Amino acid sequence: MVKDMFKEFKEHSIAEFFKKNRQMLGFSGKVRSLTMIVHEMITNSIDACEEAGILPEIYVEVKELEPEHYFVTVKDNGPGIPENYVGKALGMMLAGTKFHRYIQQRGQQGIGGSGCTMLSYITTGQPVKAVSYHKGKKKEYEISIDLKRNKPVVKKLSEEPSEEHGLTVISQYKEVKYEKSNKGPFEYIRRTALANPHATITFKDPFGETSVFPRSVEKNPPRPFEIKPHPLGITTHDLLEFSHRYGKDYRKISAFLQGVFSRVTANKVSELKTIIPEVNFDKSPKGISWDDAEKLTRAFQKVKWIAPATDSLVPIGKEQVDASFRNIFNPELLVVTERSPKVYRGGIPFAVEVGIAYGGGVKEAGKKGEVMRFANRVPLLFDISGCAITEVVKNIDWNRYNLRDFDEAPIVVLVNFVSVYVPYTSAGKLAIAPEEDIENEIRFAVMEASRGIQKYISGRKKASEIATKKKVISRYVPQLSSDLSSLTGKNSEKIEEKLMKIIEKKYIVGKGSKEEVSE
Amino acid sequence: MVKDMFKEFKEHSIAEFFKKNRQMLGFSGKVRSLTMIVHEMITNSIDACEEAGILPEIYVEVKELEPEHYFVTVKDNGPGIPENYVGKALGMMLAGTKFHRYIQQRGQQGIGGSGCTMLSYITTGQPVKAVSYHKGKKKEYEISIDLKRNKPVVKKLSEEPSEEHGLTVISQYKEVKYEKSNKGPFEYIRRTALANPHATITFKDPFGETSVFPRSVEKNPPRPFEIKPHPLGITTHDLLEFSHRYGKDYRKISAFLQGVFSRVTANKVSELKTIIPEVNFDKSPKGISWDDAEKLTRAFQKVKWIAPATDSLVPIGKEQVDASFRNIFNPELLVVTERSPKVYRGGIPFAVEVGIAYGGGVKEAGKKGEVMRFANRVPLLFDISGCAITEVVKNIDWNRYNLRDFDEAPIVVLVNFVSVYVPYTSAGKLAIAPEEDIENEIRFAVMEASRGIQKYISGRKKASEIATKKKVISRYVPQLSSDLSSLTGKNSEKIEEKLMKIIEKKYIVGKGSKEEVSE
Repeated sequence: MVKDMFKEFKEHSIAEFFKKNRQMLGFSGKVRSLTMIVHEMITNSIDACEEAGILPEIYVEVKELEPEHYFVTVKDNGPGIPENYVGKALGMMLAGTKFHRYIQQRGQQGIGGSGCTMLSYITTGQPVKAVSYHKGKKKEYEISIDLKRNKPVVKKLSEEPSEEHGLTVISQYKEVKYEKSNKGPFEYIRRTALANPHATITFKDPFGETSVFPRSVEKNPPRPFEIKPHPLGITTHDLLEFSHRYGKDYRKISAFLQGVFSRVTANKVSELKTIIPEVNFDKSPKGISWDDAEKLTRAFQKVKWIAPATDSLVPIGKEQVDASFRNIFNPELLVVTERSPKVYRGGIPFAVEVGIAYGGGVKEAGKKGEVMRFANRVPLLFDISGCAITEVVKNIDWNRYNLRDFDEAPIVVLVNFVSVYVPYTSAGKLAIAPEEDIENEIRFAVMEASRGIQKYISGRKKASEIATKKKVISRYVPQLSSDLSSLTGKNSEKIEEKLMKIIEKKYIVGKGSKEEVSE
Repeated sequence: MVKDMFKEFKEHSIAEFFKKNRQMLGFSGKVRSLTMIVHEMITNSIDACEEAGILPEIYVEVKELEPEHYFVTVKDNGPGIPENYVGKALGMMLAGTKFHRYIQQRGQQGIGGSGCTMLSYITTGQPVKAVSYHKGKKKEYEISIDLKRNKPVVKKLSEEPSEEHGLTVISQYKEVKYEKSNKGPFEYIRRTALANPHATITFKDPFGETSVFPRSVEKNPPRPFEIKPHPLGITTHDLLEFSHRYGKDYRKISAFLQGVFSRVTANKVSELKTIIPEVNFDKSPKGISWDDAEKLTRAFQKVKWIAPATDSLVPIGKEQVDASFRNIFNPELLVVTERSPKVYRGGIPFAVEVGIAYGGGVKEAGKKGEVMRFANRVPLLFDISGCAITEVVKNIDWNRYNLRDFDEAPIVVLVNFVSVYVPYTSAGKLAIAPEEDIENEIRFAVMEASRGIQKYISGRKKASEIATKKKVISRYVPQLSSDLSSLTGKNSEKIEEKLMKIIEKKYIVGKGSKEEVSE
């Protein structure tokens, strides 16, 4: 019996795992799946362009071959991919340039692109076609994935000289469906454009309709830079791992700590030495034991550190959000926050920016109580519940902000979370884990923006109350004037004029609105 | 520049991935993480016992060594693990007996146990200690995981003769915290006992308090059996994969189809032949091309199949849920559904059972609008939103069932989802993906159970109305009787008696309650 049980014992590859559990990659539901594909491809394209310092120019086409069978083409003007990496980049999970780096970037797992290749293969049996324009050559490949071994299968089709640069990926999928809904590719691209005003994105939908989202800014945002990890953000195991990886580059632990981590100075090392005199900082970092590492990470907690360098983070920016929002919605009122970065899990820097658009074009567009979530400028379309952003926004007491019913109000709340590491709840990168530090900062940011809305709404309410009062009182003026004229014998029109002036002075419409909103 | 980018190109193991993204395994938050550990261990223990036909007897101990540093011991009376598998079972992700099988089981990924070993290692640097009593031997091991390669590191400590059977795993963790809350191990174990009345679970908490949840049923539930995949539940790629795996065992495609899939008979093969005459069913299954496989899976959709064998599914059962609920809550009213299994994604059998406990002990326990989620009898404690079960229950119009405010009502709704494959939203197995077929069936099941509650509540409401009316009318009886007596000269007491009889007959308390509820 027991022997039988273990006869079934098998080892599996990550590719087989995600084939079986493709909903964990966001591939569940026909409409969602198609949007996820577009999402993964665009994410990779914009990352590549920005990293190479190129203004992104992305062309996306979704073409229906037959019902529930589509071609997806994504063409970018990025740097292209060298021949020896193209297979791994598109046909091997957990491979890529992004996994271990402390830098704000859209992708961070090395799964997305290969996930699409997998989906293409398991639904159509077809490889993905990649055309890389790189270093004076245009090279065409067919790329598939050996699911059992998680290895790329690459077939080179052609090579010719070319002065262009960029990558085009053409792939096909079955069991997916195009829909022009809030969950479809069009809305996804619209939101991507909103959060990336430096990118031009052209989208051709299955009906042949082409939409261009032109860039509104002519230069790339400042490049987020890679930072060294902060002592407060690492675990004992991390420290040990760093000692294995970089230990050979330093003679002493003291130099290793200063070289590998941010904010560690000679002074701080002295401080650490007094806290843990039993650790020999002069020995080689290669010899760090678990015990040493644990003592060090504990001592880290006792030292007062300068916070991590937060200029490594690049939010969309107040002006850009403002411009994008006006462009898309032209709302009656727009409030955008600009807050300083914070730190979570002790040492991971992050920042939250919030934009709230209210009334006007938002109302005309029929938007009600909408939350637009972004992580490092990437729109998060699905898994609305379970995400730190949604949870916070829905739990805000909107009554306090004069919004009786958030879900029915003409309001769009944009939240962009930027960090060198986004704690997604699943490999599908659909939602941000509800960690306390993160939720608190989102709450403060949304509340800050909401106060602007509150003042405006209460001002508008006041203004309308004043206008009503004025109107009511003004009604009595002619009668009162003529009565006073009869009593005093003075000119009725003069009296009326004077009374109206008094009323005008007392009830200035807009006193409670415009002045208070200008912030 | 571009060269620089790819200098960073690296490949990573699944273990490194989950080390970096441990929240995807449910290891986020100190309290949650500790409960996840207990969850993974108990899940594996009960699965092992049941598979070996042993009544589960589980001992769980959580011991605090210092603040946020705990020992967790889980001891079962299962079959133990053979020496050549113990490392992989506890020190290698995506390895195990459960991955590829079409059978209802608690674990299905081969990640959980090794995930705990990883967490132990990265928070304490310590290996996990495993004691396996197996085939007359007691063997002790220390097991760790080489994260870079996702390989187990096993050290055998001892070996001696023993007649016992079972597995004990002792592991330690830092950065976790014990809490006796709705998210803590105690509640998790309580719910496990609720859904597994055949298991005896003993729990010793960090305060030294021991709780025993004795079994209420003296035999294991019927063993769910492994089923062959149903033609409607497989993709083209699946079919191709099966032809590679089992093709050598069959001479012809026709035999292969009948051997590998359920519900495929010679008659059905003839039907398929008439739908796709261009496919040669006499050729070797090893020669099936993508095109053949696609034609076959399409033809599958056109044939009328008998639904998949659903007796492979074993729900907790009406009687057991009833007994467990009475045991724990002793509610005023208890309704448990018993519905036939359904199919999702075309061919994956599943069943939903719902129990609703209302009032009585539920009220006394202070429970309000609580949803208890289970998948294959495993409690799902966290990620409450984003789960198909929660979404459905919260979106039911409880007003229709005379429950004005679900969140404030003394009600506990238990939903158990059983299937040969549970579509979890993440590797942490916290929530069931909101697939349409699944959500619909959950909705019907909850509504069915709710009708029982509705009748009871409306009956009770009616009964209290009747009682009030009766009381009010009865007040007039003495006065009316004496007045009538004065008018007619008849005996006042007799009149009163008669009037009371009429009233009693008209207003039978309980008419609207007890009778209608007995279903």
